[in-house]
Amino acid sequence: MSEALAEKRLQELGIELPTPPQPAGSYTRSVRSGNQIFVSGQLPLTAGEMVFSGPVGEGGLSVEDGAEAARLCALNALSILAADAGGLDNVRIVRMTGYVATAGAFAGQAAVMNGASDLMAAVLADAGVHARVAVGVQRLPLDAAVELEVIAEVNG
Amino acid sequence: MSEALAEKRLQELGIELPTPPQPAGSYTRSVRSGNQIFVSGQLPLTAGEMVFSGPVGEGGLSVEDGAEAARLCALNALSILAADAGGLDNVRIVRMTGYVATAGAFAGQAAVMNGASDLMAAVLADAGVHARVAVGVQRLPLDAAVELEVIAEVNG
Amino acid sequence: MSEALAEKRLQELGIELPTPPQPAGSYTRSVRSGNQIFVSGQLPLTAGEMVFSGPVGEGGLSVEDGAEAARLCALNALSILAADAGGLDNVRIVRMTGYVATAGAFAGQAAVMNGASDLMAAVLADAGVHARVAVGVQRLPLDAAVELEVIAEVNG
Repeated sequence: MSEALAEKRLQELGIELPTPPQPAGSYTRSVRSGNQIFVSGQLPLTAGEMVFSGPVGEGGLSVEDGAEAARLCALNALSILAADAGGLDNVRIVRMTGYVATAGAFAGQAAVMNGASDLMAAVLADAGVHARVAVGVQRLPLDAAVELEVIAEVNG
Repeated sequence: MSEALAEKRLQELGIELPTPPQPAGSYTRSVRSGNQIFVSGQLPLTAGEMVFSGPVGEGGLSVEDGAEAARLCALNALSILAADAGGLDNVRIVRMTGYVATAGAFAGQAAVMNGASDLMAAVLADAGVHARVAVGVQRLPLDAAVELEVIAEVNG
Repeated sequence: MSEALAEKRLQELGIELPTPPQPAGSYTRSVRSGNQIFVSGQLPLTAGEMVFSGPVGEGGLSVEDGAEAARLCALNALSILAADAGGLDNVRIVRMTGYVATAGAFAGQAAVMNGASDLMAAVLADAGVHARVAVGVQRLPLDAAVELEVIAEVNG
């Protein structure tokens, strides 16, 4: 996929990539190993503020809110990949793991994570199709509703 | 290991690989990156039906049920590797992460995950010996008892 | 970083690497794939005994205890890398995932994981700077307070 294509898709989708979020601890936002790039866990932050807090499910956020939270995580991951991989045209998503803060017996983590997966497909087309893991956890840093880990491949 | 060996072991164990399960969302069942293959999170499904539901431990499934669930996850992962890596003779298991839906203070996730680890060793012998992570989570997609992520290496 | 440097830092920090812990199940402590090395999930064990048990947060361990537990996990991971990668001078930390056993709504997993991240930076300097994921889970094997997964790169 040429850079023009990724850029064009973002424009068509009305998406402006955010500034890459800063790490919340003693680590860095991404590390490259060979032609893989490991992106640190992304939270549903916009301009440094948590947009979706607390668990999804029983008495908590709706599946729709969760999916929007996952989409924000993915947007932040894309902003890091764009900055650290020399543009999104060089990037193929390999594997995403979604940790969904989960209340009670809520078992719709796959639907929540589709918010992230769909964004990757929309922006990167075939290069956005990934292997995926979705799990429901007790709680997340800064009380985030979702945390997303991305492993991507950089070509070029 | 030659293909004959993996096939032969499966026969000796009386194991027939299932049809590779379909993803439950907007993603694909495996992605290859270099000579690594990342398999999407596998659930204890047989022919599309959840065989072991709900958490393991206090008031939930037994450790034995959990281990059998983990074994089913591993069987599904093997079916995907056999299909997507050109046969199991080319495959070495690198790392497995087992997410065990956990009730209360249950802390036997290692025993649960041995169900998956033992199957890999039985089918792939030395090529089935892997690094491993086992954790106890709140809940899993489709209320699965266990979810298994596999990273393997493909040679050839 | 030359081997002398890593050794020297350990001495300056007054740290003696422990004997690499044995796996608690049917797997091995690390696997190499290409120039990556995957270390199995490490627990806060010292000489085979669990030092920090149970969840962190509401009614459980303090953040400080959790950070010390994460540091012990990292120390065990370093002992494995030193043994299996031919010395720490060859090692660069790529990605760490910290699973923090979490009570109630505790959301300080990043502060807990800094215990592990800070140790890596202290011992390996630039080669210890990693991508990171921190999540709060229901429970961990052997009732550990923290479990740490490390992916490192071996050069040489």
